[in-house]
Amino acid sequence: MSVVTELSPVGDDVHLGELGEHAILEHILRPRYGGVRGFGDDCAVLDAEEGLLGELVATTDSCPTPLVTSLGETDPYHAGWLLATINLSDLAAAGATPLGLVVNYTLPKTTTAGEFRRLLDGVDDCAKTHGTKVVGGDLRDGPVRQLTATAIGRCVPGGRLGRAGAAAGDRLLLVGSPGYLWAYALLVEEQARLPEAIVAGIRERAFRPMAQVAAGKALAAAGLARAAMDVSDGLFPTVRTLCGANGLGARIRTDIHLDNAPAEVCAQAGLGRFELAQAWGDWTLVVAVRPEDVELARKVLTEEGVAAQEIGILAPREEGISLDDGEKTEPWNGIAQERFSPSSWHGGDLPKLITEVLGRRAS
Amino acid sequence: MSVVTELSPVGDDVHLGELGEHAILEHILRPRYGGVRGFGDDCAVLDAEEGLLGELVATTDSCPTPLVTSLGETDPYHAGWLLATINLSDLAAAGATPLGLVVNYTLPKTTTAGEFRRLLDGVDDCAKTHGTKVVGGDLRDGPVRQLTATAIGRCVPGGRLGRAGAAAGDRLLLVGSPGYLWAYALLVEEQARLPEAIVAGIRERAFRPMAQVAAGKALAAAGLARAAMDVSDGLFPTVRTLCGANGLGARIRTDIHLDNAPAEVCAQAGLGRFELAQAWGDWTLVVAVRPEDVELARKVLTEEGVAAQEIGILAPREEGISLDDGEKTEPWNGIAQERFSPSSWHGGDLPKLITEVLGRRAS
Repeated sequence: MSVVTELSPVGDDVHLGELGEHAILEHILRPRYGGVRGFGDDCAVLDAEEGLLGELVATTDSCPTPLVTSLGETDPYHAGWLLATINLSDLAAAGATPLGLVVNYTLPKTTTAGEFRRLLDGVDDCAKTHGTKVVGGDLRDGPVRQLTATAIGRCVPGGRLGRAGAAAGDRLLLVGSPGYLWAYALLVEEQARLPEAIVAGIRERAFRPMAQVAAGKALAAAGLARAAMDVSDGLFPTVRTLCGANGLGARIRTDIHLDNAPAEVCAQAGLGRFELAQAWGDWTLVVAVRPEDVELARKVLTEEGVAAQEIGILAPREEGISLDDGEKTEPWNGIAQERFSPSSWHGGDLPKLITEVLGRRAS
Repeated sequence: MSVVTELSPVGDDVHLGELGEHAILEHILRPRYGGVRGFGDDCAVLDAEEGLLGELVATTDSCPTPLVTSLGETDPYHAGWLLATINLSDLAAAGATPLGLVVNYTLPKTTTAGEFRRLLDGVDDCAKTHGTKVVGGDLRDGPVRQLTATAIGRCVPGGRLGRAGAAAGDRLLLVGSPGYLWAYALLVEEQARLPEAIVAGIRERAFRPMAQVAAGKALAAAGLARAAMDVSDGLFPTVRTLCGANGLGARIRTDIHLDNAPAEVCAQAGLGRFELAQAWGDWTLVVAVRPEDVELARKVLTEEGVAAQEIGILAPREEGISLDDGEKTEPWNGIAQERFSPSSWHGGDLPKLITEVLGRRAS
């Protein structure tokens, strides 16, 4: 009954867990949906005759167990905030203005009203921070908490950002401030110590990360971004995906700037700044910008109050993806979790996570 | 940190399972979201300046364990079809034209590629039947299959249907053909026997129910519907909700027409036709229509190839909700499942389900 004809080397009997996310995408989803506008981008594009209003986009993501749960924080507020952030971050990568969120919650019957309210508080506060709100949703009981949302937004005419559209020579900007989430994890693990007020500041940034919605919109409206993707799974998979979508390689600098507080955590923990900067959880964006537009892009972002730094350059595909420490370049085989694989993120033991995500032995 | 001030008699320590869906809606969600346009309707309304294009709406629903699983059908195709149907049926109730679906699947790693493809086939076939498609989504592994989707649509200007807007004296039309899903359940339980070809026909209708998207659009475009809601949880909760949203009562006729095949199943099973007609699973719509518009509405639906029948009249609230068997009227305390209560639908044993849903003892 299927209307789709597929040519795929993947037989029907193989388990998805044997394939892994990449092979599922390439061999099952691309043959079926590869022709859909926006396939492979953070956001889907809706079929609508928008004319002068600009394109409508939508994205959906479930909220994993927040890392903060492993850091001793059980308040469902943070899961709610994260759920909204994850989805709004995809709109940011499309350069879209949010029109609303619809939410879908499965909750155990033993959830208390207070826990439910805290969850809603987290979603609502995050949405409000980005000038949008929850417009509808669905709620049902089930054995395990499962939080899903869909964010819908609109791009300015001709201004939708996707993963493709960049060229060799484009600079890569990292938009936002990396390192806070895993700096806090290192503090919890007592691999660093800082004054209470500074810890509280790191904790606040770690627990309520900011999706770069305003930044994405500003860059798209100004026509300054050629391609964009959010750092949802870490810097390496983001750069690798952007390179793949554009048939390019990249040279990434290891001297990524960290704010003072996470930099100090790094120093105390004996960790390179790049190791912290390349981790996920801060909902930064990677944006490809023409060399001649870099200064203007940084100016636009400064006006939005958003930090941005040049972290590298897109290169011909033959050069592959490499790290440049200022003296030499080496191939970068970074850390990437993959769904439907043993590395798929489902929370877990903190020292082990630190090893996996930061690429170092836990002490 | 919440930006919402709530006055609710529900304390923070009570479990959602003690409250039930209705109390959660009234005491937690309404104080927070009651002012949002479309609150309580099948579809949410997005904040967008639509002008002449008409309003944008969105709806999200998860797919429960399909009843057909209890009827011996394990092909994930039907879960996929149902997932799309559930969401598109909400667009139908808003009178909206679908712009696209975004899907969100959590699947065990042991899911085979073949099972996954069948799931996608079901979603894609259903979407195509209604002139739309999957435009994006998210996929992750997890211990339990969980299927969620969001449907986004657009209404004609001024033509968005909701639950409110009806008046006493309006007629209620049932749009679509009820009774197929539970007729098939009775056949599987051998409470009736029919020739193989007829069983196959019932099975087809039961397994691939049609959301009334074309009908909802046609009625909304013609300005013939005053209020609408889909029958997702059975006729009684639908009528009760429509009455509540309009501050009205209703008189429902028990002589609801069934097509020949489900009617024959009723007769053999010793079941009243109304008992079958009031069950859920056929994704019909209940639409409130001015008395003088009933004939035109039926004509419009006939042109769409959709069955419709008048099943009752909206009445002043004091009259409550009653059943009229042609000789007398009696208060209707129909069957309603409620989430976060013991009646919450999670599949189960077929004879027990028949008793619960059809309101009779299983033989």
